[in-house]
Amino acid sequence: MGDSAYSFSLTTFSRTGKLLQIEYALNAVSNGRTSLGIAAKDGVVIATDKKVSSTLIDVDAVQKIQSISPSSGFVYSGLGPDYRVLTRSARKNASAYERTYGERQPISQTVKQTASLMQEYTQSGGVRPFGCSVLAAGFDEDLEPKLFQVDPSGAYFGWRATAIGKGFVNAKSFLEKRVTPDILLEDAIHTCLLTLREGFEGEINGKNIEVGILEKETGSFRILKEEEVNDYLNEAN
Amino acid sequence: MGDSAYSFSLTTFSRTGKLLQIEYALNAVSNGRTSLGIAAKDGVVIATDKKVSSTLIDVDAVQKIQSISPSSGFVYSGLGPDYRVLTRSARKNASAYERTYGERQPISQTVKQTASLMQEYTQSGGVRPFGCSVLAAGFDEDLEPKLFQVDPSGAYFGWRATAIGKGFVNAKSFLEKRVTPDILLEDAIHTCLLTLREGFEGEINGKNIEVGILEKETGSFRILKEEEVNDYLNEAN
Amino acid sequence: MGDSAYSFSLTTFSRTGKLLQIEYALNAVSNGRTSLGIAAKDGVVIATDKKVSSTLIDVDAVQKIQSISPSSGFVYSGLGPDYRVLTRSARKNASAYERTYGERQPISQTVKQTASLMQEYTQSGGVRPFGCSVLAAGFDEDLEPKLFQVDPSGAYFGWRATAIGKGFVNAKSFLEKRVTPDILLEDAIHTCLLTLREGFEGEINGKNIEVGILEKETGSFRILKEEEVNDYLNEAN
Amino acid sequence: MGDSAYSFSLTTFSRTGKLLQIEYALNAVSNGRTSLGIAAKDGVVIATDKKVSSTLIDVDAVQKIQSISPSSGFVYSGLGPDYRVLTRSARKNASAYERTYGERQPISQTVKQTASLMQEYTQSGGVRPFGCSVLAAGFDEDLEPKLFQVDPSGAYFGWRATAIGKGFVNAKSFLEKRVTPDILLEDAIHTCLLTLREGFEGEINGKNIEVGILEKETGSFRILKEEEVNDYLNEAN
Amino acid sequence: MGDSAYSFSLTTFSRTGKLLQIEYALNAVSNGRTSLGIAAKDGVVIATDKKVSSTLIDVDAVQKIQSISPSSGFVYSGLGPDYRVLTRSARKNASAYERTYGERQPISQTVKQTASLMQEYTQSGGVRPFGCSVLAAGFDEDLEPKLFQVDPSGAYFGWRATAIGKGFVNAKSFLEKRVTPDILLEDAIHTCLLTLREGFEGEINGKNIEVGILEKETGSFRILKEEEVNDYLNEAN
Amino acid sequence: MGDSAYSFSLTTFSRTGKLLQIEYALNAVSNGRTSLGIAAKDGVVIATDKKVSSTLIDVDAVQKIQSISPSSGFVYSGLGPDYRVLTRSARKNASAYERTYGERQPISQTVKQTASLMQEYTQSGGVRPFGCSVLAAGFDEDLEPKLFQVDPSGAYFGWRATAIGKGFVNAKSFLEKRVTPDILLEDAIHTCLLTLREGFEGEINGKNIEVGILEKETGSFRILKEEEVNDYLNEAN
Amino acid sequence: MGDSAYSFSLTTFSRTGKLLQIEYALNAVSNGRTSLGIAAKDGVVIATDKKVSSTLIDVDAVQKIQSISPSSGFVYSGLGPDYRVLTRSARKNASAYERTYGERQPISQTVKQTASLMQEYTQSGGVRPFGCSVLAAGFDEDLEPKLFQVDPSGAYFGWRATAIGKGFVNAKSFLEKRVTPDILLEDAIHTCLLTLREGFEGEINGKNIEVGILEKETGSFRILKEEEVNDYLNEAN
Repeated sequence: MGDSAYSFSLTTFSRTGKLLQIEYALNAVSNGRTSLGIAAKDGVVIATDKKVSSTLIDVDAVQKIQSISPSSGFVYSGLGPDYRVLTRSARKNASAYERTYGERQPISQTVKQTASLMQEYTQSGGVRPFGCSVLAAGFDEDLEPKLFQVDPSGAYFGWRATAIGKGFVNAKSFLEKRVTPDILLEDAIHTCLLTLREGFEGEINGKNIEVGILEKETGSFRILKEEEVNDYLNEAN
Repeated sequence: MGDSAYSFSLTTFSRTGKLLQIEYALNAVSNGRTSLGIAAKDGVVIATDKKVSSTLIDVDAVQKIQSISPSSGFVYSGLGPDYRVLTRSARKNASAYERTYGERQPISQTVKQTASLMQEYTQSGGVRPFGCSVLAAGFDEDLEPKLFQVDPSGAYFGWRATAIGKGFVNAKSFLEKRVTPDILLEDAIHTCLLTLREGFEGEINGKNIEVGILEKETGSFRILKEEEVNDYLNEAN
Repeated sequence: MGDSAYSFSLTTFSRTGKLLQIEYALNAVSNGRTSLGIAAKDGVVIATDKKVSSTLIDVDAVQKIQSISPSSGFVYSGLGPDYRVLTRSARKNASAYERTYGERQPISQTVKQTASLMQEYTQSGGVRPFGCSVLAAGFDEDLEPKLFQVDPSGAYFGWRATAIGKGFVNAKSFLEKRVTPDILLEDAIHTCLLTLREGFEGEINGKNIEVGILEKETGSFRILKEEEVNDYLNEAN
Repeated sequence: MGDSAYSFSLTTFSRTGKLLQIEYALNAVSNGRTSLGIAAKDGVVIATDKKVSSTLIDVDAVQKIQSISPSSGFVYSGLGPDYRVLTRSARKNASAYERTYGERQPISQTVKQTASLMQEYTQSGGVRPFGCSVLAAGFDEDLEPKLFQVDPSGAYFGWRATAIGKGFVNAKSFLEKRVTPDILLEDAIHTCLLTLREGFEGEINGKNIEVGILEKETGSFRILKEEEVNDYLNEAN
Repeated sequence: MGDSAYSFSLTTFSRTGKLLQIEYALNAVSNGRTSLGIAAKDGVVIATDKKVSSTLIDVDAVQKIQSISPSSGFVYSGLGPDYRVLTRSARKNASAYERTYGERQPISQTVKQTASLMQEYTQSGGVRPFGCSVLAAGFDEDLEPKLFQVDPSGAYFGWRATAIGKGFVNAKSFLEKRVTPDILLEDAIHTCLLTLREGFEGEINGKNIEVGILEKETGSFRILKEEEVNDYLNEAN
Repeated sequence: MGDSAYSFSLTTFSRTGKLLQIEYALNAVSNGRTSLGIAAKDGVVIATDKKVSSTLIDVDAVQKIQSISPSSGFVYSGLGPDYRVLTRSARKNASAYERTYGERQPISQTVKQTASLMQEYTQSGGVRPFGCSVLAAGFDEDLEPKLFQVDPSGAYFGWRATAIGKGFVNAKSFLEKRVTPDILLEDAIHTCLLTLREGFEGEINGKNIEVGILEKETGSFRILKEEEVNDYLNEAN
Repeated sequence: MGDSAYSFSLTTFSRTGKLLQIEYALNAVSNGRTSLGIAAKDGVVIATDKKVSSTLIDVDAVQKIQSISPSSGFVYSGLGPDYRVLTRSARKNASAYERTYGERQPISQTVKQTASLMQEYTQSGGVRPFGCSVLAAGFDEDLEPKLFQVDPSGAYFGWRATAIGKGFVNAKSFLEKRVTPDILLEDAIHTCLLTLREGFEGEINGKNIEVGILEKETGSFRILKEEEVNDYLNEAN
């Protein structure tokens, strides 16, 4: 009768203390295309495999990396429609913060609010957890560039470098070997692309991946243009 | 005891990270009659098999393609009654946008709102996902003609050409072979009809298919008259 | 433990993309007494088998055909009490329309609203679909006489002629053979009675069937009196 | 584990299109003591077996026939407590009607409202159908005396004569043989008592049955006194 | 897995038309200590076995008979906590009636309201029936002393004499033999005590039973003191 | 699959008329540490085993006996967190009473309100019964010292002496033998300690038990200090 | 079909009086990394293993110990996202208290409110218990430093020393042997680190553990800096 049989709507504890709906949601994340990020001294890079299922898809319009504010951005692995709910909420929060305090919301706060929303969906009646993990790039109170990962459970950590989605285990051990604490953004971008290329099916290029960078110097987050991505890839060869 | 036994009302994750109700809803889409669309340089064409189960049905009154605003239109495969809920909501949103901003709602926004509504029905208590996929034709902020596909999960993409419903796999590979990036609307209409004819049971004609076109020149969306469709079909022969 | 065991209250998708509660509701329709209708050039006829389970029932008071407005009428097959909910709602809508716009509500709108109500009951928590299909006769915006059929799913079509309830398959193929596009109301009434007689158990007469006609000339809908029905039946012999 | 196992709270469709909770509710009706009624030319009689389970019950206080207005009355078979909910609602409606329109509510309207309430309980979340059928006696718009039967499904019919509860099948065929269209009230009362006596366990008398009559002449409904019932019974011998 | 397995929260119909939760609630009543009552010409007596499970219980504080108004009282068998909900509601209703109309609420009305509350709990979502039956003593509109029994289903009857709880079948047949229609209160009290003694485990006395009397002469309801009960018992020997 | 399998959230009747969730809640009580109390002529003593699972627990801060008002106190066996909900509610009620009426709330009223809250949780949707029994000491309207026990069902009794929690059966028969109706508080305290010592694992002392006394003379309730308890224990040796 | 099968959303009693969801939540706690604390004469120390799953995690940003007010702090074992809900609530309560009363909230009150929130989630419909235990350090009314542990059931105790999470049994027996009632903070910190080191996988250092101290002298709570922790560890060697 299939594997969803008897799985009830609510996230309840199993005998071993596991919240199964959350574990299953993590599987939805691992089934998704790889995303990854590196926090450098002078900025953050986040990148994602945006390869699509058909050559007919208007790749230019596929935008998995989303600006949350002029100085922060999100990317995800897992269910895109769930991710949209999170970015919508994060943008609203970030801009409310700015209106109220006259300054940019520290990324750790943006992340905390997103994580709280995700936690709520693991404890409230009649709903399911979110089916995606999120990487967030932004500046903290001390204006240092930071990278966070938020999971369906609502757990989040700051990372020097991390990867989610398909092949995330290999990607992370790859990153562990190459990312040093004092890595600079330019180097980080190259490492990011290199890591993404590792597990990539087919040729990587500016059309099938997406790269967002947060620069400490300019204080702003932007998504690289196709040509810029290709330039980085060519430099690497 | 049947196959719905134990399938609970809520869309919860299966062990493998799948949302089964969404997968089943996609089956409802694939059981529906074929719809397809092509985004050309100078416009968009969407078309659908509107063959009916009986010769007694008043075919002239069957209208699967719906205008959402004077410059955008939807078509679907799957459950018609669910589709009506979506068009009603989209029209309301589009006209509210126009009242507020004094200009047409970009199609990507119309699509996003429709997709958000569909996502909601995959995460809220006591409801089921929508049982249809939607193709949307309209202009974007830059007034370029665009084609989108929205699925029961709330996922959506821009497409140069796509097909949904019965035989959508064949239709898409057919389109992949014939649709070039710089295709023009007239050519796109012919390709569309050709593709539709491929998987069609029986003779295709202006009575059993429906074609909607969005013209960049006029900036408007309209459904072709039976004679116009027949003219296109005759030209093709 | 019976066949309702495990059938949950909500209309959810089966593995094959079916909404089983809707399919079962359609079985409730097919178990009901036959109703049918024909849209002629100059009017619409709808008719129904109103044979009752006992000679003690006050047949004169049994009225399955209901006026919705002075120029439109409904008939049904399936569960009578569910049908009453629909006629009540349709009448309220039709009269609200007339109060607001100063003119009769086009039948396609009446039908759409009825269909939307039926769709709602297939997607909302804790309710079941309606257990009846409805035939609707009325005038459209262009004042042409129209016949619609609405099903428990909320699907509806315009029909030149159609039949629902017990024996609807035979009735429809019977109608297909006899109903021409330019049929006139008088002829349509005869065809309707003939079709109804086909599957009828026992002798058909003005007491055990009910006939409603919409005349283009008078612009009004009315239910034929027993004598009128008998006259038509006698003419036929 | 018993026969209620897995019977869910909501009235949903079985595979064959049946609403099982309604069928089961009808069984509750058939388990109840017999009630019956006859609509005569000049009035209506309704009667019921009010035999009680113990000689200690204060039979005089047992009143199964209830006035709804001075000119209408109800009787039932099945669950008494459910019946009380219906009479309370019917009385409120009838008296609201009279306050608003300055005249008695036609019995068909009283019945329709009762039936609508019963239908609601077959389609709303978390409730069960009413466990009783109701016979209603009253005058219609044309001031003709009428008899109606309303069932747990919310279905209702006008009847010349009918019976519900234990042995209703026999009672109805008994009535079919004896009730003529132009029967007069006096005769109807006798026929009613005769029918009731048929299936009766033990001796029938003014204490263990209850009889209500609606007289066209006086325009009012009243419950016969024990002596009156006994007089009728004696006349019959 | 136990006998409550699969018993759902709602009172739904079984295949045979039974409301099982109500039947089970009646079992809760039959498991309770015996209560009984007799309606005499000049008053009503209600009495109950208030034997407690331990000699340490402060028997004087155990009061199963409750005054509802100065001229009416309730006693019960079954679940005491559920009974308290009913007496609280009945008292509130009775005193609201007196405030509004300036006179005592007839006992039949008090009973009807109690019964309606009990019926509600058999038809509403998410609740269970009350687990007790109630005997009510009071005066009716005509100021005659009356005795009523209300059951978990919401059914109620007037009784000349009745018994509920453990051994109620024997007690009732005992009462049937001894209670005559024109019994007087003094005699009724003796009969009541005699009946209670029949099924009693151990010696009956003013400590382990409770007796309430309604006197037509004084128009008031009161609970007998321990000595009074003992006096009656002594007289009987 | 465990023993909670199929146990539904609501307290419904089993076939034998039992409310299983309440029976199970009583098991939670019996699993808890013993509490007991004795109502003397001139006061009430309540005491409890407050032995803790570790020597590291700050025993001084463990306070199972709670003042509800200056002249009343509660103790419990079972789930401590549930107990806190009850004391919070009781305190609020007691102080509201005092504010309104200018005098102390009689303990029987405090108990009745607590019991009503507990009953509610056995009949409302979606909640479970409280997992504790409560002993309450206080003065009644006549300023006599009283002891009450309230159970998860909402049932309550006045007791001369009682015990709940682990070994309550033995403790009660021990009490039955030693508690006389005219026992005085000093004697009662000794009896209480003696009884508690009976079933105690290990040495009883002022650290691992808690004793509260209500003195008629002072009209107040207080918890004995460790030294006082030890003094009583020493006296007993 | 997995071990969550049939585990219903609500925390209901098992046959043996256990609330299984709470027991399972405790397993979630025991699966979490170890936390522990010691209440000394002149302060409280709480510490936790904050070893992370990857060297890429920004350990400096991992902060499991949270200030609730300037003079109190929490740490946890179990599910981090659930813990955040508790700290958010505790902070709000503590600061509301300070605003209202102009002084710091006693830690026992902070703890009680946290515990009440946790209890609520064991008795309300549609939610699950919190999946974490909390250690709380703060000052009580008498300004003495106190340590509390709150569990998913809502149970809480004051502790001289305690441990939760992985290996808590060993840690507690370790603490039992070394913690004396008159231990001083400096000594307590060393004991704490020693205990933590016992069950630690790998080398303990200022990066992979977190230590918070409450000083009676300063009246404030603070988290030790990495260097401070390392200093303590070096002293110990």
